[in-house]
Amino acid sequence: MPLALGLDLGGTNLRAAAIDAGSGALAAVRKVHHADRRPGAVVDAAARAVREAADAAGMTGFSAVGVGLAGQCLGSTGLVLNAPNLGWRDVPFGELLGRALGARVRVANDLSAAALGEHRFGAARGVEDAVLLFAGSGVGAGLVLGGRLHEGAGGVAGEVGHVKVRPRPGTAERRCGCGQLSCLEAYAGGHAIAARVREDRAAGRAPGLLGAPGGDPAGAGPAEVEAACAAGDRYAAALWEEVAELLGDAAANLVTLLNPSRLILGGGLLLGGTRLQALVRARLAARVSASAARSLVVVEAALGDDAGVVGAALLAV
Amino acid sequence: MPLALGLDLGGTNLRAAAIDAGSGALAAVRKVHHADRRPGAVVDAAARAVREAADAAGMTGFSAVGVGLAGQCLGSTGLVLNAPNLGWRDVPFGELLGRALGARVRVANDLSAAALGEHRFGAARGVEDAVLLFAGSGVGAGLVLGGRLHEGAGGVAGEVGHVKVRPRPGTAERRCGCGQLSCLEAYAGGHAIAARVREDRAAGRAPGLLGAPGGDPAGAGPAEVEAACAAGDRYAAALWEEVAELLGDAAANLVTLLNPSRLILGGGLLLGGTRLQALVRARLAARVSASAARSLVVVEAALGDDAGVVGAALLAV
Repeated sequence: MPLALGLDLGGTNLRAAAIDAGSGALAAVRKVHHADRRPGAVVDAAARAVREAADAAGMTGFSAVGVGLAGQCLGSTGLVLNAPNLGWRDVPFGELLGRALGARVRVANDLSAAALGEHRFGAARGVEDAVLLFAGSGVGAGLVLGGRLHEGAGGVAGEVGHVKVRPRPGTAERRCGCGQLSCLEAYAGGHAIAARVREDRAAGRAPGLLGAPGGDPAGAGPAEVEAACAAGDRYAAALWEEVAELLGDAAANLVTLLNPSRLILGGGLLLGGTRLQALVRARLAARVSASAARSLVVVEAALGDDAGVVGAALLAV
Repeated sequence: MPLALGLDLGGTNLRAAAIDAGSGALAAVRKVHHADRRPGAVVDAAARAVREAADAAGMTGFSAVGVGLAGQCLGSTGLVLNAPNLGWRDVPFGELLGRALGARVRVANDLSAAALGEHRFGAARGVEDAVLLFAGSGVGAGLVLGGRLHEGAGGVAGEVGHVKVRPRPGTAERRCGCGQLSCLEAYAGGHAIAARVREDRAAGRAPGLLGAPGGDPAGAGPAEVEAACAAGDRYAAALWEEVAELLGDAAANLVTLLNPSRLILGGGLLLGGTRLQALVRARLAARVSASAARSLVVVEAALGDDAGVVGAALLAV
């Protein structure tokens, strides 16, 4: 089977892998911690990891590498417009890495790469239209439509974290990391939820969470809310209800608009606890259009942390 | 230039045309009023109109016809799942018309057909990703993504009229024609707006509209609201503000999710008056993600009523 090379580039860690393009199996993996986030240093670390993965897998040479990273990427050019985790703006990463490796480099958003991986080898095998809805510290989506990755005119399709929502009347308005008001991520992303819980604890509005595991005000987050909810805490239950309304409506609207046959749920927030996911699924079922619901199967992501690097490698095939 | 045959099938009128597949020009058109909406009668009327259009354009024969109709269509099979205007459910229209004409028939939603027409010959020529947002008596969208029509797994992609929204606190909840609550169309479609205006007039909440042109309570609708708004009526201005918030957010969310390079505005509600369109554009600009806004140009539909029949013909090419 032919091998393909993928790179999953995070804010402080990167992972290069040679994957079997026929099965998605990882033939070799190299993980590197890159404390220096300057483009030149990351390019050096990435090039070394890719070469080592290729060597370890017994590849005698390679002509292409695929990259997934958390940020806005102009796929056709390899230009990274904005990658907050890396502190990058307008970095021509594809060109730089390509020059370092003497290979063609294709760059995409990490959720686009993950959607591609799940489509080929994971939870959406064999279907034409699949949407990956990811909710972890942030919220986003990857779109495979008509059997192909949809990245959009500027490479930023799938930014469901920045669709505008109206939270419940009475919920305080929160500003998103992107600078805008009313973004879904500002209410339903893990970072935003943790910030809200900290505020509510400091104000004495979340008494139950004080005794939850890891009950340090600075460390309050989705895992604690899930645990408190399981223990019957009313604040936690009400918060999950509200988050599930927003995530469930977003999921329903994605499906109503795009009519995929698979909706793949991914990310620590959706996969980290059974209560929130069950609420999101119920809200989705109640709010999706009846016609789009007919073709839909909702599934959990199947490839876990490998989806990104596997999908990245597929970009290079 | 090769000619292609399209059929635009409405609830009471149908239009068949032979179009120049190289320019989109209409070589011949036949319009027919079909009072009898039963499938057999519509098939007969449609087949006759298509044959007459082909004859009038000097075609010596044809092997394929494209059809656009307001409804949910399983494009690959020609099955019409639901077409409220025609009162149809699960009608194998593609197969029936194909048998009558001895030709291959491809059926699609009318907004999908219109998006295809605008993409090839109208407001979105030369781009890969275009979204048609249509607001008339109903609300919907047609999606051309990666240069191809995106119809979804069940042929119902683009149903933006049935995405779920939260209207302003205080606005009465309205049930959509589809049976669900909170659909965009139930607040921002022309039929729904007319119903709301009638109720508000009957309850004395819309005094300004009593004197508007066509001021018959039964005939109140978007055109009257636009006129009253132009005359400085406060009820009308507030209503347009609210409708524009919903349509503008829907447009912004479509663009944030799909990152098209063109957003095409179509339909009588968006094109019928300058005030509402200006409000929708302003809301869109304020609420779209900054990254998706960079690639976006907002345009009015260019082909008017011809978009549907031209796009239908392209389906057959």
